[in-house]
Amino acid sequence: MYDVIIIGKGPAGLSSSIYTGRGNLKTLIIGKDSEALEKAYISNFCCAEEQTGKELIHKGIKQALDVGVDIVEEEVLDIKKESEFVITTDTKEYKSKSVIIATGKPKIKIDIPGINKYEAKGVHYCVACDGFFYKDTKVGVIGYNDYAYHEILELESITKDITLFTNGKDIEMKKENLDELKSKDININKKRIGVLEGNDYLEKISFEDGSEEEIDGIFVAYGTASSVDFARKLGITIDNQNILVDDNQQTNIPGIFAAGDCTGGITQVATAVGQGSTAGIRTKTYLQKLKK
Amino acid sequence: MYDVIIIGKGPAGLSSSIYTGRGNLKTLIIGKDSEALEKAYISNFCCAEEQTGKELIHKGIKQALDVGVDIVEEEVLDIKKESEFVITTDTKEYKSKSVIIATGKPKIKIDIPGINKYEAKGVHYCVACDGFFYKDTKVGVIGYNDYAYHEILELESITKDITLFTNGKDIEMKKENLDELKSKDININKKRIGVLEGNDYLEKISFEDGSEEEIDGIFVAYGTASSVDFARKLGITIDNQNILVDDNQQTNIPGIFAAGDCTGGITQVATAVGQGSTAGIRTKTYLQKLKK
Repeated sequence: MYDVIIIGKGPAGLSSSIYTGRGNLKTLIIGKDSEALEKAYISNFCCAEEQTGKELIHKGIKQALDVGVDIVEEEVLDIKKESEFVITTDTKEYKSKSVIIATGKPKIKIDIPGINKYEAKGVHYCVACDGFFYKDTKVGVIGYNDYAYHEILELESITKDITLFTNGKDIEMKKENLDELKSKDININKKRIGVLEGNDYLEKISFEDGSEEEIDGIFVAYGTASSVDFARKLGITIDNQNILVDDNQQTNIPGIFAAGDCTGGITQVATAVGQGSTAGIRTKTYLQKLKK
Repeated sequence: MYDVIIIGKGPAGLSSSIYTGRGNLKTLIIGKDSEALEKAYISNFCCAEEQTGKELIHKGIKQALDVGVDIVEEEVLDIKKESEFVITTDTKEYKSKSVIIATGKPKIKIDIPGINKYEAKGVHYCVACDGFFYKDTKVGVIGYNDYAYHEILELESITKDITLFTNGKDIEMKKENLDELKSKDININKKRIGVLEGNDYLEKISFEDGSEEEIDGIFVAYGTASSVDFARKLGITIDNQNILVDDNQQTNIPGIFAAGDCTGGITQVATAVGQGSTAGIRTKTYLQKLKK
């Protein structure tokens, strides 16, 4: 059991971890490298030497390790709040008393005509949140990797008629996961999607090759789960794709903090590091109060 | 005329200036060295090498100079808002379209028994704000340097019976300023103050040597003018000695931003640098809107 799990290995998450680690909180960072930042050359970060993003992150990682922080390069697939927080990655499951989300700015992951029109009217982004609307109906998951696999597993208890739509992508999933989907008769459709159609609600998917498929609902789990995807699962208030936080970087859910680009504002290393330090310190305050 | 004047040469002010300088805003930093930070060893500032405060500030100054920022080592004595902002230092006067206050955490400057009891009831901190209550009365200024001199000049148009109380300190004032005070018959009292006394309102000062002096009001201008002193002069909302700012580091007065320890929160280099970058970027946005 960790005191705090930090999701994201960029400047915000690393800065948080330096404070929680120094504050004797058992801390785990789960994150993958950020290619965009690593390629950047950072000269506007005050009071640090000019350096590449790669050097900058390397320094942060060294500082985190020096204060006893654990770091794993895994992909987070799911977060649940039970008596503690349970975080499922592509490799294993971790538990913690608090969470800091520092996953950077969510990218627009898929752009299919009609996807916005039917949002919440057949198009959804979180099985745990909206899956129960689709009991025993015909549903699809748009995705191609272990994140999609994880959403399909969640859907299975709701309906048996599930199709994985890869939208033209090859499947990039652990072999045992793909084998499991096949053994469970999950349909796999690799055609490129042309447009989502219906009247008030989604009714069918039209593919670029002219074929169609009727569908009651689809769940988007395309690429990597973003901060907004996690936030949805946890009931965190989102404003215009940003996680809403107060001056202490705390979300509306006790024990969950967020810092850096995923909270909106200016997307700068300086602000990420600053907000990260606040999140780290305030997480410690939160856990101290919890003990009493 | 500057686009922006930044008061304070610590991590917050320097970080702001890097952004305003890169944004082609004509930028001036007015500040003195911070001895407290310079002596510190900073190891919790993420993604920067471990370094002394002195090295850290030196790097920030180099970054600021590299983007064309002017830096002067002067002491700010007064800020006024006319058609633009007018900032008076111990050396000269500067004008700007916007101001970023980044002066660090105000220290408790003087601790005299009774000083809190009579606050706003005979004890004041801003002649420009409260001087008019004391027309033709007997007033004192507690101080010893050019900041006190400046407050006395402001008082002169209100009353002629003015005493400078140094509270045991030697006078550290430019010779011409001291000469001017003497030529104007300003009384100088160098005794150590024991206690401020009165009933509902301040009535007299008792000195440690047992002597007393009746007084109608005193203005504290002891040491260096702090962020809170500037804020009072400008009508900025203060909360518990901190300057109140919004998510954009903007105060309630258009064109005035604040960043770093003077805005409260955790007093860390990381947050100062982060807030400074936001203040710099938002000042640019403010000036762009002003042009339209």
